[in-house]
Amino acid sequence: MRILVLGGDGYLGWPTALHLSAKGHEVGVVDNFARRGYDLEMGVDSLVPIAGLQRRCEVWKEVSGREVDCFIGDLVDPDFTYRVIDQFKPEAIVHFAEQRSAPYSMIDQKHAVYTQVNNVVNTLNIMFAIAKVDPSIHLVKLGTMGEYGTPNIDIEEGYLEITHNGRTDLLPYPKLPHSFYHLSKVHDSHNIHFGCRVWGLKATDLNQGVVYGQETPETALHPELATRLDYDGVFGTVINRFCAQAAMGHPLTVAGKGGQTRGMLDIRDTLACVELACLNPAEAGEFRVFNQFTESWSVLDIANWVKKVRPEAEITHTELVRVEKEEHYYNAANTRLLDLGLQPHYMSDETIERLVEICERYQDRINPAGIAATVNWRNHTNVLPAAGTPLR
Amino acid sequence: MRILVLGGDGYLGWPTALHLSAKGHEVGVVDNFARRGYDLEMGVDSLVPIAGLQRRCEVWKEVSGREVDCFIGDLVDPDFTYRVIDQFKPEAIVHFAEQRSAPYSMIDQKHAVYTQVNNVVNTLNIMFAIAKVDPSIHLVKLGTMGEYGTPNIDIEEGYLEITHNGRTDLLPYPKLPHSFYHLSKVHDSHNIHFGCRVWGLKATDLNQGVVYGQETPETALHPELATRLDYDGVFGTVINRFCAQAAMGHPLTVAGKGGQTRGMLDIRDTLACVELACLNPAEAGEFRVFNQFTESWSVLDIANWVKKVRPEAEITHTELVRVEKEEHYYNAANTRLLDLGLQPHYMSDETIERLVEICERYQDRINPAGIAATVNWRNHTNVLPAAGTPLR
Repeated sequence: MRILVLGGDGYLGWPTALHLSAKGHEVGVVDNFARRGYDLEMGVDSLVPIAGLQRRCEVWKEVSGREVDCFIGDLVDPDFTYRVIDQFKPEAIVHFAEQRSAPYSMIDQKHAVYTQVNNVVNTLNIMFAIAKVDPSIHLVKLGTMGEYGTPNIDIEEGYLEITHNGRTDLLPYPKLPHSFYHLSKVHDSHNIHFGCRVWGLKATDLNQGVVYGQETPETALHPELATRLDYDGVFGTVINRFCAQAAMGHPLTVAGKGGQTRGMLDIRDTLACVELACLNPAEAGEFRVFNQFTESWSVLDIANWVKKVRPEAEITHTELVRVEKEEHYYNAANTRLLDLGLQPHYMSDETIERLVEICERYQDRINPAGIAATVNWRNHTNVLPAAGTPLR
Repeated sequence: MRILVLGGDGYLGWPTALHLSAKGHEVGVVDNFARRGYDLEMGVDSLVPIAGLQRRCEVWKEVSGREVDCFIGDLVDPDFTYRVIDQFKPEAIVHFAEQRSAPYSMIDQKHAVYTQVNNVVNTLNIMFAIAKVDPSIHLVKLGTMGEYGTPNIDIEEGYLEITHNGRTDLLPYPKLPHSFYHLSKVHDSHNIHFGCRVWGLKATDLNQGVVYGQETPETALHPELATRLDYDGVFGTVINRFCAQAAMGHPLTVAGKGGQTRGMLDIRDTLACVELACLNPAEAGEFRVFNQFTESWSVLDIANWVKKVRPEAEITHTELVRVEKEEHYYNAANTRLLDLGLQPHYMSDETIERLVEICERYQDRINPAGIAATVNWRNHTNVLPAAGTPLR
């Protein structure tokens, strides 16, 4: 199958591209290196060193004998987007190419607007390019479980059958997203759903949970195939951050009470889910939503698990910089990918142990000024210590 | 009360500004003349001639003795937006300043992206400016009933109490918008709701129906106070278009079967609703939604009513260029503005008669090439006859 991975240089885009290539698909990757730019802005870098995209592709060819086509450009440019899709002629497009940090989107006006324009416009450009080149191209879009927020009712997969005043309809699940980033994903979902209704596009929206882990069977084949690992307060996500903190002897920073519960999954399951979605495409006109996570854990559950593996780690409770509930109901459906055959890698001591070991190996690469989660949701003009010169 | 009307040069923004000024409020208007630019692009002009904004403000001062402050600039520019709000120091901001045509947003990629970026970014800029200048400024945002689409259940005002698997929550009403324009309004609603939750902003989202009419007590005071009237296939709305068609002896063009039912209201009720919202502000942190329409009619109902007033008018059924249901359930709540004291002007023979007379007076200003609704929802690259040189 011909699969184009947008955002193919990122934390998940790169290992997804390798996984699909290893499975025998013809893979292309597209990236504009925006993610590497955010590192420069934040004064931090991936904990695990990563090679350049072109070099990664060369190494992959040496190691596997398989080629990955590499397209460098910005999907906010509609001509570039059209030309890449027209030239590569994919059967499926996997769309990771969005600014994906909630704190980054909450820094200030400029970052909020950048996030929404980047994410919404590149997705619109992809939709128009698909409509023009070939409406049968299956769009596999990475969404987020954060689109739903934390409602007091069970979360379903994209839709909810609602009975009201004696009448019933199946409607999009109501959304209460947590940040300007999460809002951009909600906007995308609405836009893509519309594209399916009016142009007969085929789309799968993968509402993904928080991903943890760094190694996949393919990235482990060579150091220059490694994917990035983020420990910082802006791009690092909870499990990866706690493991990095444990590795460097920093207390595990639990925001508030830590009862915030989220769907989570192992990086290897992300790769499997994306392939399952590609191999089992949506119908023409169908906007299909899968909740892509395997287990739900609270932030405090995770801190305690890391402490179980590294008992010397301390847990501290930090100021709640996000506006979110510290304790809440959470029960989300996630059966559709299991029905397609997903075999989850559930959280284990071994997984955490392995992740802490990786962090220990590279702990001298950590910029301590970048660790704290300093973007405050209630402040509309955050000035980050890590943005520019680290505070001393 | 100090009220800033964004988009104050437009069809509804201008008469709203005059109405608020006549009621004794201190009013400022902001506009970038984007709406007049769309006319140039489409090769059409307002059926009723309109004066320039600065001239309108001069005439209003001569006629009423009241001043309206006039700010010219683009709200997509965050510095301009901040400076206007900081300088005028409004207690309420009435936000009409969006690209408001569904067909315009459906022309092609460029128009879809323009519509969403313009509408979403200027609203974000307004939110950030309010947060910075004074979070107690009440944002009165014009939304649209089209955000809801046509679900098979009753439409409520912004929220829906949902019971699911034995648990209950009050959640945002699920949205199924009809166009990239309507989607931009849904995006705005989600963004503003979030601003209320995280920054304690006060907002009222007025989900407005289709507005008809052209005269208000204030605009009728002088020809140079007139507001625009659109008859064309891109910016004209259903009742105004049928009256213009009746005036020029053109058949009334009913799309498909004409069972498409929408909430509608008299232009004078728009003005009253906006003032009611301003005088009764939302609480800090509250995102309040009012459905702003007074009656629901189908497209065919309206054509038949115009034919009742002008029996010589013919009704023709044209190709359905939008993707929408021709027959559907429609029952939407609209009690909250009535509870605040709205006294509706219901549809009447006299209203239609008066509107047809206005159209007859200016019928020599009609460009026949602009009448047809030619933007096809299923076509992602519409080329309009009226865009550029009218087809001959």
